[in-house]
Amino acid sequence: MKNVAIGIDIGGTNTVFGIVDEDGNCLEKKSLLTTDFPTPEKLVKAIFEQIQVILISLDGINTVGIGIGAPNGNYYNGTIEYAPNLKWKGVVNLIKLFQKYFDVPVYVTNDANAAAIGEMTYGVAKDVNDFVVVTLGTGLGSGIVCNGELVYGYDGFAGELGHTIIEENGRECACGRRGCLETYVSATGIVRTAQIMLARYSKPSVLRDVSDEKITAKSIAEAAKKGDSLAQEIFDYTAKKLGFSLANLVAITCPEMIVLFGGLANAGESITDPTKKYMEENLLLIFKNKVNIVPSGLKSGNAAILGASSLVWNELKKENFEKVELN
Amino acid sequence: MKNVAIGIDIGGTNTVFGIVDEDGNCLEKKSLLTTDFPTPEKLVKAIFEQIQVILISLDGINTVGIGIGAPNGNYYNGTIEYAPNLKWKGVVNLIKLFQKYFDVPVYVTNDANAAAIGEMTYGVAKDVNDFVVVTLGTGLGSGIVCNGELVYGYDGFAGELGHTIIEENGRECACGRRGCLETYVSATGIVRTAQIMLARYSKPSVLRDVSDEKITAKSIAEAAKKGDSLAQEIFDYTAKKLGFSLANLVAITCPEMIVLFGGLANAGESITDPTKKYMEENLLLIFKNKVNIVPSGLKSGNAAILGASSLVWNELKKENFEKVELN
Repeated sequence: MKNVAIGIDIGGTNTVFGIVDEDGNCLEKKSLLTTDFPTPEKLVKAIFEQIQVILISLDGINTVGIGIGAPNGNYYNGTIEYAPNLKWKGVVNLIKLFQKYFDVPVYVTNDANAAAIGEMTYGVAKDVNDFVVVTLGTGLGSGIVCNGELVYGYDGFAGELGHTIIEENGRECACGRRGCLETYVSATGIVRTAQIMLARYSKPSVLRDVSDEKITAKSIAEAAKKGDSLAQEIFDYTAKKLGFSLANLVAITCPEMIVLFGGLANAGESITDPTKKYMEENLLLIFKNKVNIVPSGLKSGNAAILGASSLVWNELKKENFEKVELN
Repeated sequence: MKNVAIGIDIGGTNTVFGIVDEDGNCLEKKSLLTTDFPTPEKLVKAIFEQIQVILISLDGINTVGIGIGAPNGNYYNGTIEYAPNLKWKGVVNLIKLFQKYFDVPVYVTNDANAAAIGEMTYGVAKDVNDFVVVTLGTGLGSGIVCNGELVYGYDGFAGELGHTIIEENGRECACGRRGCLETYVSATGIVRTAQIMLARYSKPSVLRDVSDEKITAKSIAEAAKKGDSLAQEIFDYTAKKLGFSLANLVAITCPEMIVLFGGLANAGESITDPTKKYMEENLLLIFKNKVNIVPSGLKSGNAAILGASSLVWNELKKENFEKVELN
């Protein structure tokens, strides 16, 4: 019998899930449109039904647990709490919902924390005790590992790097405040930068030929790659904001490595190189030329599922550790 | 026999040291002027001679270790590394210097980390797993505890909150950069604010009656306490900068408690109340009304010695833990 974990990533748009073994192989996966489900109960039921089909099709496996990454997922409570990107409001008790169908332990955290544990388990941060994962998607999240352990903080909400304020009276943020890092550095932030730059400058750009609503992080990245100078400036501005913030983060937790993860991070060196340059420019002397910025080591199509599934192996490791300690 | 630890705090101006028992009682203490010693070798020899005298005078004690807090003290290397506030340059190997005279383990860290372990051991943070100590002295330091462990970071320099940049192109800092938090929030930072405010505004203030070089954090605090409105504005400005920074720090590590420690923190509610107000104003919704800001719980005259000595008990605790784990 081969031990496997179920990894589930609940996103604002898509929910993906799959069966993952201890080596990080995703044996089978499926996805659903989160927005198709008016209540979390209905989504969980649909996930259960699809997983049942997968489990029957796989021979010789033993499911040891379920790991879930979700927006505003709280590790301590096993809940989603007031997630602005989901239409289900208030507090959703995921553990309770899943244990109606599954007789294995269920662990919940947010997607950025899941990504960090994923990098520790199967990715670029194996044997790295101090690192940070920055997820660049619709928003900006972070998972922070210190002394080999994920930092959840007092009540499970640590790692909100995207909601550190980098500009007093800066851009309005969905959180109700202004100047949060994610209003500049995220898929939506870079589009806002593009809109402002297109309006402010008159230099030609292929971005002027597409309608406003078609400007996306991806189209900006493509234009930059093709040498469009305005698109390159947009990337540079984004990297400057991120590099500045990372320099401040390094001063606080002093990581060995910063891992960039998610959509915008797929731009590769177009984002890592200038980010590294601006981070170095802003670093305190004792930190200079020490911190690597690297892309995620999780297979891009399965990264979210791998991250979520890794929660299970991480909890098993902690349990074994405690058992040894008690003997 | 009673177990005791030697606690040594090496500061830019004074070096204080004493003998501390496991309950945090400082049995005896002494001090030296750091600036009297042209080399670290000479200071260590002088400390040894004075401690010898103390140890002989105390009956029935067993010294289990030496803990040292020092500027730019590095826990991993047992060194002071390029401390701008000391006249000894380069890297000073404290463990080597002390082990010439003492046959017990020697542990080194910076003063802010020592303060954090001190609060965990004898102060307000017993049984608190996630908290931050902010030391407000000549500069601003921080010791960060996550999951019950001090965050040293990859190479021992975590917790440089004072060198996070809060103002692009802000005040010049001794570190060579601009806009670091400690150029605004520290004993020297508040004096700079006073100088600027006295020049900018014309309203009367008792601070106008003292010569420029006599304006100190203490005289500003006293004026504010007596109702001097300009002095109160200076405090308010300082608290605003600190509150803003702490709100960003909370988003990253999500502590249960923030402890203010050191000279400027002695202003008590004049600094904690407005700091708390501005922190709350800047906090992301999920963190509001959750984080306490409290003054240090270490006896003020002995706080630095207690902090340094607590390193020893903390290491013994870790060793015992590992022993149990290996059995």
